[in-house]
Amino acid sequence: MHIPGKMSRTAYLDNGSTTTVAKEVLDEMLPYFTNEYGNPSSIHTMGDNAARAVTNARKRVAAAAGCRPSEIIFTSGGTEADNLAIFGAVMSSGRKKIITSAIEHSAVLEACGRMRETGYKVIVLPVDGEGFVNVRDVAKAVDDDTALVSVMAANNVIGTMEPIAEIAEIAHRHNALFHTDAVQAFTKADIDVKRDCIDMMSVSGHKIHGPKGIGALYVRTGVKISPVMVGGGQEHGLRSSTENIPGIVGLGKAAELAMRTMRGDVKRMTELRDAIIDDILKTHGSYLNGPNEMRLCSNAHFGFGGVRGNDLVLALSKMGVYASSASACSAGSTEPSHVMTAIGRDQSEALSSLRISLSRYTTQDDADLLSESLPKAVRAVRK
Amino acid sequence: MHIPGKMSRTAYLDNGSTTTVAKEVLDEMLPYFTNEYGNPSSIHTMGDNAARAVTNARKRVAAAAGCRPSEIIFTSGGTEADNLAIFGAVMSSGRKKIITSAIEHSAVLEACGRMRETGYKVIVLPVDGEGFVNVRDVAKAVDDDTALVSVMAANNVIGTMEPIAEIAEIAHRHNALFHTDAVQAFTKADIDVKRDCIDMMSVSGHKIHGPKGIGALYVRTGVKISPVMVGGGQEHGLRSSTENIPGIVGLGKAAELAMRTMRGDVKRMTELRDAIIDDILKTHGSYLNGPNEMRLCSNAHFGFGGVRGNDLVLALSKMGVYASSASACSAGSTEPSHVMTAIGRDQSEALSSLRISLSRYTTQDDADLLSESLPKAVRAVRK
Repeated sequence: MHIPGKMSRTAYLDNGSTTTVAKEVLDEMLPYFTNEYGNPSSIHTMGDNAARAVTNARKRVAAAAGCRPSEIIFTSGGTEADNLAIFGAVMSSGRKKIITSAIEHSAVLEACGRMRETGYKVIVLPVDGEGFVNVRDVAKAVDDDTALVSVMAANNVIGTMEPIAEIAEIAHRHNALFHTDAVQAFTKADIDVKRDCIDMMSVSGHKIHGPKGIGALYVRTGVKISPVMVGGGQEHGLRSSTENIPGIVGLGKAAELAMRTMRGDVKRMTELRDAIIDDILKTHGSYLNGPNEMRLCSNAHFGFGGVRGNDLVLALSKMGVYASSASACSAGSTEPSHVMTAIGRDQSEALSSLRISLSRYTTQDDADLLSESLPKAVRAVRK
Repeated sequence: MHIPGKMSRTAYLDNGSTTTVAKEVLDEMLPYFTNEYGNPSSIHTMGDNAARAVTNARKRVAAAAGCRPSEIIFTSGGTEADNLAIFGAVMSSGRKKIITSAIEHSAVLEACGRMRETGYKVIVLPVDGEGFVNVRDVAKAVDDDTALVSVMAANNVIGTMEPIAEIAEIAHRHNALFHTDAVQAFTKADIDVKRDCIDMMSVSGHKIHGPKGIGALYVRTGVKISPVMVGGGQEHGLRSSTENIPGIVGLGKAAELAMRTMRGDVKRMTELRDAIIDDILKTHGSYLNGPNEMRLCSNAHFGFGGVRGNDLVLALSKMGVYASSASACSAGSTEPSHVMTAIGRDQSEALSSLRISLSRYTTQDDADLLSESLPKAVRAVRK
């Protein structure tokens, strides 16, 4: 990092927004920019080599998701995957109702909102004070006109891990489809699309030490979806556009790499995260948002009485500590996060947020720098 | 390139399908994978640095297109840009008619087809034997119910450069919008969106020595479009998704780099291309498809009596020469290209195609290898 002046220690604790690309990932991507740069639709040797790279990456992503390679559609990221799941599957279903939760990512909520504009009924389920969807609410809402239930695997702001396998089971009682936005949870929580009976799952490269600009949607064989992007018919006609080969290779490698050490990484992140929580809660006026149990290993989220989260993030940034107030997608916004409102925080509480998000590369040194800097930052902001 | 055995000479002549990433482009991209990997929506220093990179790239792409930076929307590629132009602008217009040409890229034709399914009237204009749209046909078709006229700047198969400024002027007489797919022409033909009165223009990174997975849509200030991808509200709400920073930086650098030497590059490519055409037309039974004048500098396209294009491409590939039969998007297809049909070729002629497409890195050596290999390949295939 190019930090001017004397400051040399930095701690990147905003991995919920985006992560560094792993060295191993970049190394595998590089040849596809300048040597093996063929278009997989070309039938010559260079096209073949590109196509083979896509096949290999597809296998790796499928292995991490627990599905068949043919069930993976590469997209430009989590947002496109969420949009494709909702627009594509609902339009194909003939049913008129969509059920989702109040704390979904905006890529899901906005897509549902657009379906509502075109005549679909959208039911947005509430969550409890820790962010959990109540499975009984799902059971009450689902009926034979329900096309899709979409509930995220882990929330991006407060880390709540939803009971997606139970929700999927309820959806299936009425032959509704179940989609989960697993952008935060993929490779950081134990998800197996077959075991958990998930019909569609969105994942993103740049949240798992892969590159930005690439993601994937798992679509179970037999689920009918219409493409959103149309043209050359790539990805079995479900996502037209020349394949982003380095991105696809990077996502494949990132998934493979993450799964290899997932168990140990999750344990280590959980311990470090819990130590950070214990430490931060010593700060006067601080409290934890989100659950104690069933919380994504990489997420910690706090409120600080009388402190604006954005001010705190800026104060920490000057000290080389990079964190977030809510999620990056709403960072800088002066509106309270819809997630905070949904868990019952008032406007002032919602705006006093600090999200600390870890990755498998987060170290004790990072936690130490946070621990040293936070009290100073809070004091500076409270002045 | 990893070519087994003794063969060392190769000639990549499939630049219409995709191009190598320029060294200078990759060099500028690299820091954004592993050092400056912030999310531009984050308000801390790393977020700021990423946002600044996007701003700089936007300026460069705008300079190459001849527009303001605020008029550039980054997309995942040319297909998404085409889809966004058609879906986004037509839905916002309130008008019910779209006019396009028979030789558009499938990203335009399929998008128009989808609009037709939802009740829009789509008029597909014919082209002449060289692929030119007749401006009188446009004038006859455009009326006050026309939302959009979409005609490509240069055809991807046969290189025909359409009279887009004239067509734009006709569209504007009826206050219809004019969109051009400039994926092939951008930085290889003299296009200035202001001078040429273009309302929307699609460009792609990987056709101009930038990376795959990135493109842009120029949208003139004042043109109303609705987003296709919805969520976090990036790109002024017109294209949600975490920005693909390395991709955006790469497209920016590729555009800047190409414009710097465009004049000389175009001259050199034209001369080399003309020499290739002269040489190939010596082959028995060969003929040129597409125009002699107003042809994209990088494109040459041939028919060979009694030879299947795909067989020829495979035979050339074994000799280290990489070319294409039609375009990559329909490569490997046993159906004739819609472009060939539109210019009046019969099925057998359409399937006997060979496209040779150059880049500014194509050398005389490449042309020499093609010249040596092609007669052998044709003989081998005719046997």
